[in-house]
Amino acid sequence: MRFLRRLSFNRQGLIPAVIQDGRDRTVLMVGYMNRQAVRETMKRRRVVFWSRSRRRLWMKGETSGHVQRVKEVRMDCDGDTLLITVEQVGGASCHTGYRSCFFRKVSARGVPQTIGRPVFDPRSVYG
Amino acid sequence: MRFLRRLSFNRQGLIPAVIQDGRDRTVLMVGYMNRQAVRETMKRRRVVFWSRSRRRLWMKGETSGHVQRVKEVRMDCDGDTLLITVEQVGGASCHTGYRSCFFRKVSARGVPQTIGRPVFDPRSVYG
Repeated sequence: MRFLRRLSFNRQGLIPAVIQDGRDRTVLMVGYMNRQAVRETMKRRRVVFWSRSRRRLWMKGETSGHVQRVKEVRMDCDGDTLLITVEQVGGASCHTGYRSCFFRKVSARGVPQTIGRPVFDPRSVYG
Repeated sequence: MRFLRRLSFNRQGLIPAVIQDGRDRTVLMVGYMNRQAVRETMKRRRVVFWSRSRRRLWMKGETSGHVQRVKEVRMDCDGDTLLITVEQVGGASCHTGYRSCFFRKVSARGVPQTIGRPVFDPRSVYG
């Protein structure tokens, strides 16, 4: 894959990937990929991250079934970030049940407030 | 600012910020902020990054005039990423003259292709 040579991975061998919903362009989350995760994402057309806490490849939705189908992959000007447009199966990307991981708005004075409601109950999905 | 205590900065003391255009939700770029850059961004209502190459605070658009006016700030579920909705003055965020830094699409076979045209000529802006 030609573009892999043009990507800049950080000291930990990772590149951040912004995941955007293709339906209405909501930014769902940001995750990290190593070289292998990028290859798997391209090949399987499902978003695959490198889990920094579990230290292994992790297909988004492998437990919940809420996979992210890849619609388009973009790279930025200096090749150190990916932007991936997806179809979010199940309607929510966040393990908390919210559609987007960015469900907290910060007021001008710096106070975080939750926006919207969860799409699913995490207990029913993760048991 | 209360939310600052809830943010997780990485080993370099930085947090990535996804910058999204409020007009049509185009993802313009991803930059990095240290604690001070987050504070300045909140206070000035203009996006301020930490420049990793120049090792200093850097108000986006300080040279080009293409500042990013802050409309909304969000934090993600684990507090290690920010999402900032902006009004992009000058219409383009990338130093190459493209509206978004993500102007290259990667084909299914991994070949990058440029999408769209530059909004401005970098030579006329940066001299």
